[in-house]
Amino acid sequence: MDKIYKQTMLFDFYGELLTEHQRRVYEDAVYQDMSLGEIAEELGISRQGVHDLIRRCDKILLDYESKLHLVERFNRAKETVRAIEGLTNQAEGTMDIPDRLQAIRSLARKLLEEL
Amino acid sequence: MDKIYKQTMLFDFYGELLTEHQRRVYEDAVYQDMSLGEIAEELGISRQGVHDLIRRCDKILLDYESKLHLVERFNRAKETVRAIEGLTNQAEGTMDIPDRLQAIRSLARKLLEEL
Repeated sequence: MDKIYKQTMLFDFYGELLTEHQRRVYEDAVYQDMSLGEIAEELGISRQGVHDLIRRCDKILLDYESKLHLVERFNRAKETVRAIEGLTNQAEGTMDIPDRLQAIRSLARKLLEEL
Repeated sequence: MDKIYKQTMLFDFYGELLTEHQRRVYEDAVYQDMSLGEIAEELGISRQGVHDLIRRCDKILLDYESKLHLVERFNRAKETVRAIEGLTNQAEGTMDIPDRLQAIRSLARKLLEEL
């Protein structure tokens, strides 16, 4: 997973647990792709201050993920949903309808475990 | 939702964010259905202390839910998965197969939004 994508996922799930100030800086850096210098100027703090704040947010968000595993669970559940979606495509595959419905049913049950 | 069920759901999602001590007391009360007196004796603290600790945990867990809404999202996603499961039951309903697969497909897409 590339770094910005990972930061975005973590922020999507746990961003609400940051302070407003942390959220703002992190959003500027991760979503707006602003440079440390730009963010520093906007907020009237040093580049080093911005840098430290972002590293601190990374750590906070990773700590939450290590406890709650929401990003991991979401990614797993998403794959299962995609597999269900794939099975609804009548044009594809050689599986007959009863088998197909049975496979979707199994995936739905698997999904309930993964949520 | 009844109170114990709600506490169990909140604990399932956010229990890892409590301290070990808080988790232990909360588990004794909510999962083991132990009385305040029993927990107090086990831990060598007052009944009032146990009572306050449980209220405090309720508050912490509800605060997380008010920010992350995991229980709410889980319940919504679960309903959608159940609806998919229902549609895989060939014996039921009058919907023909192409419509049924289409309906499952729509629900799978809805689910991706809900996760």
